[in-house]
Amino acid sequence: MSFADIGMIGLAVMGQNLILNMNDHGFVVCAYNRTVEKVDAFLQNEARGTKVVGAKSLKELVAKLKTPRKIMMLVKAGQGVDDMIEQLVPLCDRGDILIDGGNSEYKDSERRMKECAKRGLLFVGSGVSGGEEGARRGPSLMPGGDPKAWPHIAPIFQAISAKVEGESCCDWVGDGGSGHFVKMVHNGIEYGDMQLICEAYHIMKDVLGLKHDEMSNVFEEWNKGELDSFLIEITRDILKFKDSDNEYLVEKIRDSAGQKGTGKWTAISALDFGVPVTLIGESVFARCLSSLVDERQGASKKLGGPSGPKFSGDKKAFLESIKQALYASKIVSYTQGFMLMREAAKEYKWALNYGSIALMWRGGCIIRSAFLGNIKRAFDENPELSSLLLDDFFRKETARCQAGWRTVVCEAVKAGVPVPALSAALAFYDGYRCPRLPANLLQAQRDYFGAHTYELLGSPGLYIHTNWTGHGGNVSASTYQV
Amino acid sequence: MSFADIGMIGLAVMGQNLILNMNDHGFVVCAYNRTVEKVDAFLQNEARGTKVVGAKSLKELVAKLKTPRKIMMLVKAGQGVDDMIEQLVPLCDRGDILIDGGNSEYKDSERRMKECAKRGLLFVGSGVSGGEEGARRGPSLMPGGDPKAWPHIAPIFQAISAKVEGESCCDWVGDGGSGHFVKMVHNGIEYGDMQLICEAYHIMKDVLGLKHDEMSNVFEEWNKGELDSFLIEITRDILKFKDSDNEYLVEKIRDSAGQKGTGKWTAISALDFGVPVTLIGESVFARCLSSLVDERQGASKKLGGPSGPKFSGDKKAFLESIKQALYASKIVSYTQGFMLMREAAKEYKWALNYGSIALMWRGGCIIRSAFLGNIKRAFDENPELSSLLLDDFFRKETARCQAGWRTVVCEAVKAGVPVPALSAALAFYDGYRCPRLPANLLQAQRDYFGAHTYELLGSPGLYIHTNWTGHGGNVSASTYQV
Repeated sequence: MSFADIGMIGLAVMGQNLILNMNDHGFVVCAYNRTVEKVDAFLQNEARGTKVVGAKSLKELVAKLKTPRKIMMLVKAGQGVDDMIEQLVPLCDRGDILIDGGNSEYKDSERRMKECAKRGLLFVGSGVSGGEEGARRGPSLMPGGDPKAWPHIAPIFQAISAKVEGESCCDWVGDGGSGHFVKMVHNGIEYGDMQLICEAYHIMKDVLGLKHDEMSNVFEEWNKGELDSFLIEITRDILKFKDSDNEYLVEKIRDSAGQKGTGKWTAISALDFGVPVTLIGESVFARCLSSLVDERQGASKKLGGPSGPKFSGDKKAFLESIKQALYASKIVSYTQGFMLMREAAKEYKWALNYGSIALMWRGGCIIRSAFLGNIKRAFDENPELSSLLLDDFFRKETARCQAGWRTVVCEAVKAGVPVPALSAALAFYDGYRCPRLPANLLQAQRDYFGAHTYELLGSPGLYIHTNWTGHGGNVSASTYQV
Repeated sequence: MSFADIGMIGLAVMGQNLILNMNDHGFVVCAYNRTVEKVDAFLQNEARGTKVVGAKSLKELVAKLKTPRKIMMLVKAGQGVDDMIEQLVPLCDRGDILIDGGNSEYKDSERRMKECAKRGLLFVGSGVSGGEEGARRGPSLMPGGDPKAWPHIAPIFQAISAKVEGESCCDWVGDGGSGHFVKMVHNGIEYGDMQLICEAYHIMKDVLGLKHDEMSNVFEEWNKGELDSFLIEITRDILKFKDSDNEYLVEKIRDSAGQKGTGKWTAISALDFGVPVTLIGESVFARCLSSLVDERQGASKKLGGPSGPKFSGDKKAFLESIKQALYASKIVSYTQGFMLMREAAKEYKWALNYGSIALMWRGGCIIRSAFLGNIKRAFDENPELSSLLLDDFFRKETARCQAGWRTVVCEAVKAGVPVPALSAALAFYDGYRCPRLPANLLQAQRDYFGAHTYELLGSPGLYIHTNWTGHGGNVSASTYQV
């Protein structure tokens, strides 16, 4: 009776495709869905002719699995996962493994691992990325949680994941909620990569006045070099995709971007951990602004832009500058993302392997790129690298690109084309390499109006208050501060 | 026995100064502190010769207050407030008023109002701003919570608050946690104003090479015009303040900015509500980056900047441009802050009066300025104004400033001086007035890789999926999305 290698709960597109992928690799999967008609429909259609079996109840699912049981859930994140765990616990045996493959918040996974451990179950929170195509052909998988689970699930996870140069884009991330944390940062970086491409497209279209075929060709070219990546590739395809009426489809699409929340979570985590992940922050806000379509259209009739002359320089040279701006900004974005992971790892005591994380993202997922190979190399060479920008390769690339980067931001600013991500990245770069930021003035202001005290150069940790006005009390702000 | 008009719990600097302020206006205050020795010390020192009385226990405090009792707490935000409420509830009578004047999170105040209401008490969460000076001479007060409390506390609150042209910088904000929400946004805006001034100072110092007296004079001049404000005024004083060794003190201060959290909360709220409050976001991140002093100093030795020529234009004209850049960015920051309040008010069903909020900030607090008088005027003229930028006055001012604004951002970018807030503001302005953002491409990408669907121009609400590649399934992403 107990013959299936793994159980899958949830038969939406991701669940279906992961099952078919597992089946391709010789694993017997038992499929279950709350609306059980979906099980039959799946077996009779997409899974026809495979070794996939179905279950009409959780009890049946559990009965059909080899022990220790491996049960993967692809159900609605949040309460849905907790409810499912509650239903599974009484059916499972000590040592069984519950895997949440949904887009859960990492704090939930951190909690669930502990709760499951108390009840004798091994919980895994796994990032799954790559969309429907990735799930079917080879996703990026980022499992974290109870490390005792890893030897049991590794054969399946590493078999079905994407491969790059023979290496699997799946490795054990770390304890607790680290898998979902890394997936969250991945999604934030995805927001950033997409926003950067959108800004490049915006500049090409509205500053240079390029046609769609020309833009598609530029992305085609870019995809052959350091920007070689899935998102550049699909942008090439999207820009030249014509609707049935022979018009470019992309221009018919409403410029109002949705967001599923994980980009937002990354930005919120960055704020919570105090890490300046500005590019993702601006990318999330750019989506928010895009969604105010009516308000923007109203404003566009009242608020004027620059009246200066149109771009009159060398288009080809400027396209090279746009490429450099995008590339340098991308380096900044990943620098920020890895800074965030490092800070979270410190706080949660996760032993993250950053080279391995870069490898997990190297293939299978939305942000897959040649670029990530370089990041892997950087962290493999120096696992303690504090910042990607300080790696020799990325340092030189940024130096090479910075003149073009500055040119593009200036031209966009002069033309009135918004480049929130490109300019945030540049501001970060200039701030990060600034030995003396103007925060001394800010600290003086805080001490002036709120007696918040400040440190002197060369004496960190020693807090001083100055009576700047010569009047007022000398009570220093302690428990209560404004 | 019951003769005091109001009780104050917490005798740190803010509590002491608010008490003395109330005393000045003829109210009898009963002072209590958990460490009771502080009560005696206060009565024998700062409060000597006043009508202030002390209490050595909460029971004594409650006994000395006229009914309905008004008890203001200035204790540690968070659990400290809940603990204090728990201690007060059994001592109080139905209809008594508990006022939290600390920097509480608005969601806590929302919850506490409901909990107190169930127990027959009227809860008020009040923003208190202005630092120690403001508390002593006239703070900005932003009370919200149970509206039945307002008539009882209005005489005290409006008497002690700052006045501008005869009007009190205190009015009833609204239900629930609205008082603390408005205070939170105030603090976020304060972060933004301070960051903008720091960027202006940074440009003056490192692009123009101005001396401290020259910079102080510039701020002195600015303080006479549209930028007339407390923060500009103290910056003038700080820049010319010399230490005992005759050196400028500001240059000895470590450029590592602290943050108490409310700026961060504003940015997180903005992300949660989906409102692009980019300038405050960048200002919070700028503080985070400033605090990485060692990392920045290390990076400064490895990461080079632009090698172009130094600024060689007309310094006086450029200073005018800096002023315009600061002013226009400030208009954007307040626009974003009011957008956030409008969204929160919608969600929580608070009936906020935006003109009245501008008036509360007009005096007494850290962001007090002539500018807020114009904001009040704008909302008084049109309470439904969707965006400050669309008000005629601010629209014209922004138009007048935009050329200088663009020049300053470009020059800073070319010089390698980071201007995250000035450039984020400009990107917002250009995005907000953009009838067509590149989010159409982003939606196409999301549909390409995740079948997330998109809307067509002119058909909002109708979601379409295109099979961009010509292969892959037609299952659309529903409950599970990457």
